[in-house]
Amino acid sequence: MVPTRLLMAQKLRVGILGATGMVGQRFIQLLDGHPQFEVTALAASDRSQGKRFDEACTWRLPGGMPDWARPIAVQPPAPPLDCDFVFSSLPGDIAAQTEEDFARAGYAVISNSSSHRMSADVPLVIPEVNPEHIALIDVQRKQRGFDRGFIVTNPNCSAIAIVLALAPLHTKFGVTSCVVTTMQALSGAGYPGVASLDATDNVVPFIGGEDEKVEAETAKLLGTFKDGAVEHAPIAVSAQCNRVNVTDGHTASIRLKLERPASLAEVREALTSFSALPQQLQLHSAPKSPVVVRDEKDRPQPRLDRDAGQGMTVTVGRLMPDSIFDYRLVALGHNTIRGAAGAAILNAELLVARGYLSPPG
Amino acid sequence: MVPTRLLMAQKLRVGILGATGMVGQRFIQLLDGHPQFEVTALAASDRSQGKRFDEACTWRLPGGMPDWARPIAVQPPAPPLDCDFVFSSLPGDIAAQTEEDFARAGYAVISNSSSHRMSADVPLVIPEVNPEHIALIDVQRKQRGFDRGFIVTNPNCSAIAIVLALAPLHTKFGVTSCVVTTMQALSGAGYPGVASLDATDNVVPFIGGEDEKVEAETAKLLGTFKDGAVEHAPIAVSAQCNRVNVTDGHTASIRLKLERPASLAEVREALTSFSALPQQLQLHSAPKSPVVVRDEKDRPQPRLDRDAGQGMTVTVGRLMPDSIFDYRLVALGHNTIRGAAGAAILNAELLVARGYLSPPG
Amino acid sequence: MVPTRLLMAQKLRVGILGATGMVGQRFIQLLDGHPQFEVTALAASDRSQGKRFDEACTWRLPGGMPDWARPIAVQPPAPPLDCDFVFSSLPGDIAAQTEEDFARAGYAVISNSSSHRMSADVPLVIPEVNPEHIALIDVQRKQRGFDRGFIVTNPNCSAIAIVLALAPLHTKFGVTSCVVTTMQALSGAGYPGVASLDATDNVVPFIGGEDEKVEAETAKLLGTFKDGAVEHAPIAVSAQCNRVNVTDGHTASIRLKLERPASLAEVREALTSFSALPQQLQLHSAPKSPVVVRDEKDRPQPRLDRDAGQGMTVTVGRLMPDSIFDYRLVALGHNTIRGAAGAAILNAELLVARGYLSPPG
Amino acid sequence: MVPTRLLMAQKLRVGILGATGMVGQRFIQLLDGHPQFEVTALAASDRSQGKRFDEACTWRLPGGMPDWARPIAVQPPAPPLDCDFVFSSLPGDIAAQTEEDFARAGYAVISNSSSHRMSADVPLVIPEVNPEHIALIDVQRKQRGFDRGFIVTNPNCSAIAIVLALAPLHTKFGVTSCVVTTMQALSGAGYPGVASLDATDNVVPFIGGEDEKVEAETAKLLGTFKDGAVEHAPIAVSAQCNRVNVTDGHTASIRLKLERPASLAEVREALTSFSALPQQLQLHSAPKSPVVVRDEKDRPQPRLDRDAGQGMTVTVGRLMPDSIFDYRLVALGHNTIRGAAGAAILNAELLVARGYLSPPG
Repeated sequence: MVPTRLLMAQKLRVGILGATGMVGQRFIQLLDGHPQFEVTALAASDRSQGKRFDEACTWRLPGGMPDWARPIAVQPPAPPLDCDFVFSSLPGDIAAQTEEDFARAGYAVISNSSSHRMSADVPLVIPEVNPEHIALIDVQRKQRGFDRGFIVTNPNCSAIAIVLALAPLHTKFGVTSCVVTTMQALSGAGYPGVASLDATDNVVPFIGGEDEKVEAETAKLLGTFKDGAVEHAPIAVSAQCNRVNVTDGHTASIRLKLERPASLAEVREALTSFSALPQQLQLHSAPKSPVVVRDEKDRPQPRLDRDAGQGMTVTVGRLMPDSIFDYRLVALGHNTIRGAAGAAILNAELLVARGYLSPPG
Repeated sequence: MVPTRLLMAQKLRVGILGATGMVGQRFIQLLDGHPQFEVTALAASDRSQGKRFDEACTWRLPGGMPDWARPIAVQPPAPPLDCDFVFSSLPGDIAAQTEEDFARAGYAVISNSSSHRMSADVPLVIPEVNPEHIALIDVQRKQRGFDRGFIVTNPNCSAIAIVLALAPLHTKFGVTSCVVTTMQALSGAGYPGVASLDATDNVVPFIGGEDEKVEAETAKLLGTFKDGAVEHAPIAVSAQCNRVNVTDGHTASIRLKLERPASLAEVREALTSFSALPQQLQLHSAPKSPVVVRDEKDRPQPRLDRDAGQGMTVTVGRLMPDSIFDYRLVALGHNTIRGAAGAAILNAELLVARGYLSPPG
Repeated sequence: MVPTRLLMAQKLRVGILGATGMVGQRFIQLLDGHPQFEVTALAASDRSQGKRFDEACTWRLPGGMPDWARPIAVQPPAPPLDCDFVFSSLPGDIAAQTEEDFARAGYAVISNSSSHRMSADVPLVIPEVNPEHIALIDVQRKQRGFDRGFIVTNPNCSAIAIVLALAPLHTKFGVTSCVVTTMQALSGAGYPGVASLDATDNVVPFIGGEDEKVEAETAKLLGTFKDGAVEHAPIAVSAQCNRVNVTDGHTASIRLKLERPASLAEVREALTSFSALPQQLQLHSAPKSPVVVRDEKDRPQPRLDRDAGQGMTVTVGRLMPDSIFDYRLVALGHNTIRGAAGAAILNAELLVARGYLSPPG
Repeated sequence: MVPTRLLMAQKLRVGILGATGMVGQRFIQLLDGHPQFEVTALAASDRSQGKRFDEACTWRLPGGMPDWARPIAVQPPAPPLDCDFVFSSLPGDIAAQTEEDFARAGYAVISNSSSHRMSADVPLVIPEVNPEHIALIDVQRKQRGFDRGFIVTNPNCSAIAIVLALAPLHTKFGVTSCVVTTMQALSGAGYPGVASLDATDNVVPFIGGEDEKVEAETAKLLGTFKDGAVEHAPIAVSAQCNRVNVTDGHTASIRLKLERPASLAEVREALTSFSALPQQLQLHSAPKSPVVVRDEKDRPQPRLDRDAGQGMTVTVGRLMPDSIFDYRLVALGHNTIRGAAGAAILNAELLVARGYLSPPG
């Protein structure tokens, strides 16, 4: 075994922007004991600056705050920060400029925020789906005049689960259109987020900007990197997003049309056999199976399936022929793990493996 | 004013089959003080037979059991019953034969059960949508050799809300296809119904037989009565039904394609101006507006909108153009009022107005 | 019958301070069609001032905003307001000075806020319990130099249900001590109030200031008006308050010791036979029975019992001898009706009946 | 380190009675990878007998059924079973005779059922509280004529959390009386258990037999083993138990009186410093701290604290002087881990350490 001290010495030093929020807390939880990354800086845009993290942050996750995070002083989200690169889960309005500032100052910014996702020169990446899009980094550096820094984003929490379910089918059979209706968890709105009186005994058929994000991001994620740009996939997406009374785990009811005919067995096989670059590279946060198909008639369910693959596996069920489209299925993913903090961390692991992230000097 | 005693003398005497269940209790609640109907008999298939209703029934509705129902002895669901006609909310497996028996014995059976809905000679009716289908009663009597009795059904609790939202558009513009994803309330499964451990912090993407019912019933409801039969509408329906943690109120996310072009304003106008036979006849349980359109971006919501029109109005929101279909909208209806007991009662009121139900002698 | 126009002319004109909040909305809902009061002014301390009420207020109650309230312009909560007296549900920090200002300006202030409840010269009143405490108004006017105006308060939403259950026993047998553990509804915290992530699948064993309010207010409410002052009742109260995942309806588990021995039957009889001044005066909002005892082993339950007596009746169950105290019981009341807006309106009706509130001129 | 194969060879072979229920599933989950116990037999009283476990059991726990359990054939709960001893979570009515049968047939029965808990010759044990009570086994064997077998029980799921919080105080200061009001989780009622319509937006102030169990078991658990018998502690307990809408984690609001005076600091210190035999013996399932005290004003909360110490730690909060009793506090424990399956497993580990359980031959 490699001595711990040696491993520690090689760890990349990480800053977290938006550390006190729901996704920020997930970053801290998931980075606890991470073999490659070590959190050295915490920043937040709220009034918590200057306080110790355990005073600044009302921890909302089961399991408690890791002890190492407690004494770290919360800083303003502006460079310089004492770290090699940053994860960002800043609110959208602040993220745009702040992430640009960090990238310009030489930091790699691995962002979960929505601000830069649809920019033509910013990679929007799910490592199992479109790892080649990270080549946009070179384009971005040139265009924006960044030296060492860059911005890489992961999709919206719903889009990730949906696209992970679509990707194996798109690769093999071509998905030409899909209708998506989501039932999304409360944690997706952060904390305090959704008022309990809106959540209890209720459904809210609206999540600001979400329909549009799912529709746009899907086409970019399934797009092709060619001649220094991402050509969006010619896929028509209709998304209608709803908030339901679930703590964690976004569920999406999906109908889809395929370009090339495929039997139910072939579709099922494409999903269950799906394995991609993160699995080959054995990235630390990559689940053994990015997609699991359950054949029980009443799955997936958030409470039972959101933690599959440590929250990094998307569970698909209710797979069957559809009366209008070719097939229908229900996909479920953990929105703050696979759909947010885990997504960004997996992106960072991919970037390390591809040489875009390395210790200074 | 007409003296109360005179009105009382003219009331039709009603039996309720399945009186102890969730829908049975709604029948009793909604018939409390009804100007045309008076409950004189209660029947149930469970072990409650012979007991007083207040001993046999665990009342689950807010507001308490009406006093007049308390002493009524619960009888087996078999003719004869001391009443002029029956409402039935029997479980599907028992309903098929029992309802046939009652009809053969001379009782009109106004049923909320699924057993006979799709039979070619049984009217499946929403009074605002296809009141002319009640003419099937004559066909039914001839075919089955019924004398005075007959069976009339109302649709599944989800189908009602969906079809009430589709009907005005179908009439004006022709709906050729629609994709429906439902988020259905717990009361739709009866009592005890869904286990709390399946409901809390969860979504269950499966309701037995529901997808099929919504798909089939929609086509029959929007069909045309011609030459003694109902010709199903040539409408393609894809339904995927989910259970969510809501006590009452089914929500349906709908995308639809129209035969004839219509602007958003025309679609909206078709919905808001919708008024039909029950409104013209001023049937007692008919809401002023069968469909209400809400323009707030976050409506309809079960907790806020299920009781619109005393639970008989369907609330539509999120009406907008769709990226694949022509339009999308979200429809919400109270599943045990408009979707069950209220539906059957409105059917009975229609049948009275049309002369199919009248006091004996 | 009295002509409507005449009645209208005699109605007292009411202003509501804090009109956009949860309790403010309940005031508007409960005053819709009130025979004695007519809302003519709405005020709020938030950024809604100047807007029409239907633009300023996100209505959170089932049933929708009454049409008459829609166009009323929201004003700042400061005198003068175009009304004869005001109901106040202002936040505690603002209420103290604002209510004083209104009273000094000649308005009767019927307040649901906590600011003045424990002031020695301010009546804290439940009309069924201590109507004679309103005589403090005269003391208050003298002490504070108020001319026509005055402040009358109702208790905290939990204290009301608890004290309504205790009062009949205190009167007959003397309650010397009681241990109260509450399970309180989300609406008690207003809107947005409790974050859904704190409510779903959870209990929060803390409500700021609530333990203290229940303990203090109980003693004042059960106290005696003597020589121009209220002598607090010598009752020891231990309260521990919890927030549970219920929309409306506070439940309280109570153990109590009696001064004079009483059999279970006598205790039950004292509760069920309880009727007081509001019932004798037939005040408009007074329930037929202020307290109802249910003998089923699993009642009261918020969902089934909170609306008893239009939300003005407290339901008691689980009444039995206790192994440490003399008796135990569980009491439940609707927290925003009997526990807030309804409480204040009943106080106003009492004040009208007692001549403290009358039309100007 | 001891080679794994050797350890495997020494494992005790375990049968689980009631394997398909909620607690049975927790046994299987917690025994997955247990260093001392290996599940070799599964039994259930329901219609699942003869089927493979993965066909017989609807798995309701997050994380999925362990693969080793899948093919095991479910047997009737009657000796002989292919195992060294049995865990029992049979329903109370079946457990009484069945557990007796197993003990008589030579099996140690480590039971979570209530049937034998209060029998004078059956140990009711929490290893941190009264490990010396296991000496009753010898009495039991003699009285009942058991040869190798015996029955050992753990308390009711609520009583465990309550008594773990009381025990350190009882030892140091003597608890003479306590008033307990519980808010219990849905999983405590098994599956399907509580109907969702009773759980959602509701509290049910009744759990059959629970008040009595908490009152009786507390006195036995805190009792003294003397002259071959357990002398119950002279402690007065008043328990009122409520069901709330929480999946896992029982919360108890407690007031208590002490025999000997103790300052708040001393009480706090007694709780935080509490460590007992299982911690000294380093039993596999023993948490580092059986009781943790949280000083935040809004803890403990089920969602945040139930998994403390892998579900084996009881979290105490809201510790403060009480206005009637000496102190009040709120205690929370995981009801199906520390309160059921984990309790029984820790009992078994204690019995191994004490020589009552050993491999055959």
